[in-house]
Amino acid sequence: MRFHTRKWVKPEDLNPNGTLFGGQLLAWIDEELALYSIIQLENSRVVTKHMSEINFTSSAKQGDIIEIGIAVAKFGKTSLTLKCEVRNMMTRETIITIDSTTMVNLGADGKPKPHGKTQIEFVKDRIN
Amino acid sequence: MRFHTRKWVKPEDLNPNGTLFGGQLLAWIDEELALYSIIQLENSRVVTKHMSEINFTSSAKQGDIIEIGIAVAKFGKTSLTLKCEVRNMMTRETIITIDSTTMVNLGADGKPKPHGKTQIEFVKDRIN
Amino acid sequence: MRFHTRKWVKPEDLNPNGTLFGGQLLAWIDEELALYSIIQLENSRVVTKHMSEINFTSSAKQGDIIEIGIAVAKFGKTSLTLKCEVRNMMTRETIITIDSTTMVNLGADGKPKPHGKTQIEFVKDRIN
Amino acid sequence: MRFHTRKWVKPEDLNPNGTLFGGQLLAWIDEELALYSIIQLENSRVVTKHMSEINFTSSAKQGDIIEIGIAVAKFGKTSLTLKCEVRNMMTRETIITIDSTTMVNLGADGKPKPHGKTQIEFVKDRIN
Amino acid sequence: MRFHTRKWVKPEDLNPNGTLFGGQLLAWIDEELALYSIIQLENSRVVTKHMSEINFTSSAKQGDIIEIGIAVAKFGKTSLTLKCEVRNMMTRETIITIDSTTMVNLGADGKPKPHGKTQIEFVKDRIN
Amino acid sequence: MRFHTRKWVKPEDLNPNGTLFGGQLLAWIDEELALYSIIQLENSRVVTKHMSEINFTSSAKQGDIIEIGIAVAKFGKTSLTLKCEVRNMMTRETIITIDSTTMVNLGADGKPKPHGKTQIEFVKDRIN
Repeated sequence: MRFHTRKWVKPEDLNPNGTLFGGQLLAWIDEELALYSIIQLENSRVVTKHMSEINFTSSAKQGDIIEIGIAVAKFGKTSLTLKCEVRNMMTRETIITIDSTTMVNLGADGKPKPHGKTQIEFVKDRIN
Repeated sequence: MRFHTRKWVKPEDLNPNGTLFGGQLLAWIDEELALYSIIQLENSRVVTKHMSEINFTSSAKQGDIIEIGIAVAKFGKTSLTLKCEVRNMMTRETIITIDSTTMVNLGADGKPKPHGKTQIEFVKDRIN
Repeated sequence: MRFHTRKWVKPEDLNPNGTLFGGQLLAWIDEELALYSIIQLENSRVVTKHMSEINFTSSAKQGDIIEIGIAVAKFGKTSLTLKCEVRNMMTRETIITIDSTTMVNLGADGKPKPHGKTQIEFVKDRIN
Repeated sequence: MRFHTRKWVKPEDLNPNGTLFGGQLLAWIDEELALYSIIQLENSRVVTKHMSEINFTSSAKQGDIIEIGIAVAKFGKTSLTLKCEVRNMMTRETIITIDSTTMVNLGADGKPKPHGKTQIEFVKDRIN
Repeated sequence: MRFHTRKWVKPEDLNPNGTLFGGQLLAWIDEELALYSIIQLENSRVVTKHMSEINFTSSAKQGDIIEIGIAVAKFGKTSLTLKCEVRNMMTRETIITIDSTTMVNLGADGKPKPHGKTQIEFVKDRIN
Repeated sequence: MRFHTRKWVKPEDLNPNGTLFGGQLLAWIDEELALYSIIQLENSRVVTKHMSEINFTSSAKQGDIIEIGIAVAKFGKTSLTLKCEVRNMMTRETIITIDSTTMVNLGADGKPKPHGKTQIEFVKDRIN
């Protein structure tokens, strides 16, 4: 699993208990899943279709830095299934794990469209 | 199920496909679940612990109005399990359904604490 | 008066005195008035034209939950006049009351246009 | 009347009709009124207590620049009454005028407190 | 140098040290530079091309009010070079000074285009 | 240079020319510089002190994904000097390069404090 985007937990990201708000975390994860899919599928019309159950294992407090990791679980014909883990860089604990998130590749008509990809590509390898 | 909070879908809430961003929707839902729990449990130290799988059934576009509905699935000893549905008020379609979300009641020490509630109360009935 | 949308008062919603910022409250109210009008008039081209005087009766502090209530004062030919009350769900106090807000129904040309409505309709009653 | 703060109308500031959202405008005005009062009263515990009626005379569209002007209407014992005008710098039209907004000076106990001011002071004249 | 826009330092504008976040300050400055240029050049297609080195001389804390001042350094053929100073209205200290920022005037094709201006104009003097 | 955080360019990040707003980009960069420094120096009291001149080489449009890269230029006694490059992942062009940004390590008293670091450490190597 590769960890890219890092977020810094600010006052506006906290829940009433003073820890990282679950909803904010899910919004960050979904954005990262979308970015990852757009880059892999080379198509910016990508939407989230399904997420498997979510366990909030630990949390983070104001000033903590978290990092979001993503790995490919499966390439479908019109879909891409990803797994995701978020870690707290301060405490080194796992905050959340989502085993399977299905992203769907859409055509200009907004309907699922085959993406033709079968494996991960690195952007640097695409340069002609 | 009672529907309370309404949201208006704005440009900053859209995904690359120009429809309502899943992550924004999950953030709205989680905030609503927290508010509902705080009011029912009469405690503001409440956190999200678990969400069952999530299916994105339909979406919404810029200018649409959505409403978020919540119902109690079960009162636990230190937890409250809620179910949730989000509807598009323009198209009358269901956007998302989450069968079970577990919210945990915490004490001042940040640990789970019995909340002593066994059924829904309406704020108006609490007035002495 | 029916109370729908609930808001949770966060750090970024506070004024220099550490209580709910009046401007943020007015922004929430205006959005709720617009949503209510759009649903009643079945037209999304609706703008705020006039607000009667505003008294800030009490306030709210961080972590409080408020709810926004709206009722129809009058159906005009091209306008809809609404009244509004915001309550603090924690203290049960009224935060603000606005006796009359005039919303105007616009046509595609941006000019006032008769909306043809004379009474409140519930979305569920519109289903064929 | 002196015009200070300028705002640039962005996509997230628009109402469903594609013009400047009234609620956003009121939030900007209230913040400017608070800043003006804090500087004049040399106290940061200042809250908005009352606004006279508000007429939305014209609007602004995306990309327009507006400027917010404030003048003192009256110095009370614990209050400061301000008037406000917002202009569109592109069209040179008045967008909104509020004849009277009452700001209250608070003490550390959160109660109204005499501010001892009777006229406008310029920050530069306060230097030693 | 004329000081226009004022900003109030809020919780979400702070860095991990609890003082005004440099990045937020640069975002405010760049917006103000863009607004100033749009008004002077009477063209809204203006972009930032270059900034000279930046020294953060002092900072600001939550609740402080800052003001942003801009002056013209030079009118180029397709560009406008501005200098900028930000002051803390509470402490009267300079927070940041940027000696030279080059803004470029673009045509509808997105390419640099002569703006035909050679000196500052005041909006009030443009009225016919 | 290692590239971590990725950002997706949204409507609210655009300047009046419809391209990525320079100020937003600088805010993203400064946050990433702060996060990088906090992790390297194992201290969250870190502030930006100086940035060398900034050239905006190319831009990005709505929907583009950018990535922010950081490398260490020099470890000082109380400071850390970083260089930074931002690339557009869609066009593979460099958007901005900043040769030198000086971050200062502060003590609890808010004054510069030796950090005792002389080389880059990877978080995984710190685990006992």
